[in-house]
Amino acid sequence: MEIHIAKMAGFCFGVKRAVEIAFETATTAPDRKVGTLGPIIHNPQVINRLKESGVLPLSEDAEGVGDFDTIIIRTHGIPAGLFDSLKERKFDLIDATCPFVKKAQQYAKLLKEEGYQVLILGDGNHPEVKGILSYAGAGALVVGSDEELPGLKDRVGVVVQTTQPVDALKRLLNSIVETSREIKVYNTICSFTALRLRETEELAGKVDIMVVVGGKNSANTRQLTTLCRRIGVETHHIETTGELSPSWFKGINKVGITAGASTPEWIIKEVLERIENFHE
Amino acid sequence: MEIHIAKMAGFCFGVKRAVEIAFETATTAPDRKVGTLGPIIHNPQVINRLKESGVLPLSEDAEGVGDFDTIIIRTHGIPAGLFDSLKERKFDLIDATCPFVKKAQQYAKLLKEEGYQVLILGDGNHPEVKGILSYAGAGALVVGSDEELPGLKDRVGVVVQTTQPVDALKRLLNSIVETSREIKVYNTICSFTALRLRETEELAGKVDIMVVVGGKNSANTRQLTTLCRRIGVETHHIETTGELSPSWFKGINKVGITAGASTPEWIIKEVLERIENFHE
Repeated sequence: MEIHIAKMAGFCFGVKRAVEIAFETATTAPDRKVGTLGPIIHNPQVINRLKESGVLPLSEDAEGVGDFDTIIIRTHGIPAGLFDSLKERKFDLIDATCPFVKKAQQYAKLLKEEGYQVLILGDGNHPEVKGILSYAGAGALVVGSDEELPGLKDRVGVVVQTTQPVDALKRLLNSIVETSREIKVYNTICSFTALRLRETEELAGKVDIMVVVGGKNSANTRQLTTLCRRIGVETHHIETTGELSPSWFKGINKVGITAGASTPEWIIKEVLERIENFHE
Repeated sequence: MEIHIAKMAGFCFGVKRAVEIAFETATTAPDRKVGTLGPIIHNPQVINRLKESGVLPLSEDAEGVGDFDTIIIRTHGIPAGLFDSLKERKFDLIDATCPFVKKAQQYAKLLKEEGYQVLILGDGNHPEVKGILSYAGAGALVVGSDEELPGLKDRVGVVVQTTQPVDALKRLLNSIVETSREIKVYNTICSFTALRLRETEELAGKVDIMVVVGGKNSANTRQLTTLCRRIGVETHHIETTGELSPSWFKGINKVGITAGASTPEWIIKEVLERIENFHE
């Protein structure tokens, strides 16, 4: 049995940076109470390790934050209003917002200042999108790629949730050109995410079964799963090795493994080793 | 036999305005030598009527212009350099550039000034596009909708030849988002043109034969012909009634007539009457 791992599987630049910041903070400030606004990444196993180091996940809307000294902002970023109020309350704020997400926030602000109606392509329930939206001004809208667009203004500015597929952006632009005369687009899709999607797609086309590793609450991991299933290959989305079943691999020649941006390498390694053991 | 005429067939706003300007100039300045830079519209019949009124078509690059007093710039516009040199030479310049084309020129200039690499979607051999290109700066490119794009810069600005179909713009944007991070689009497609294409498409789907009336050298008339043929309906592109053949209409129930933006109403009327006569 051959096992192939997608090259871009696992932690992206922004997640790696944020997790390092969190562990570092735990080490350098052992006497302070440290919390993250929402789980720092969408991976329960990493969150547990951080808890053991003394970094606790708070709710994303900063409830109960008063008991803490140091607050870490996770990769997704937070809304502008919350950022300002935490700053005013003199917390020790550590900003681990992914630099690509930060850019999307800044572009949304710029488009608003230039008088565009800002459209954010993405999932309105995702914290990253809520954060970007807070910079985008009064008339801003969050749109999914296949949603019917409401009546748009004549001048539309577009930013994109960093983990969206580029095809979604294409479909959105195809709709906007029908109604708006001026469109300014910042393609804020993270190229790492785009690459991972492409590599996963290629891998899924070559194997008999795909194992997608990552938090069940991770949007980008779920996106990988959806992609593999669309290709028609048998696909299992697991968080940990415990969910692997030997029966999946009976009579299988080629296995593909991919993982979301918030899946640490050690979990991917464990999955690989467990599948290898099934075979022996 | 039913005969249907597309509602938007014939002269558009810009052409109507330019032809009126040309005839007016002939009337108000009978003692001056009046020329147009290139035929004022792509319709030989209108050009002949203007010649009879004393307005002569000059070559588009202003060769032999020295013998004239008054120069009319046609709907397509002219390159910035030519405009400036004619102004310097103290000609009586009358600018009948279509206001929508003028806008496309100004947007190209604006995009250049904002530091974008300017892309013009259109036909590089068309005088309108040559004019727009002259405002678009050094790195500017003219691209057809189905051409392979060369390596683009990170910041790309797009303007569109006014008579392009919106689908061509969609295809172009789909390519650009793959490579550039910032895209500013001025959709300078003339809505009149878009409407005429849509109405012609609808009409062509309902009739047994389409007659497209307009200059053989008119790009937008040829575009209508291509569109009808793509739909699969028998289509004839004619300039004048003389080209109509009674045999086309034998056993036909429904005839559709459409016409390009440079086709005057009197020609459309003549075509309609001639086809009606075939039937009697």
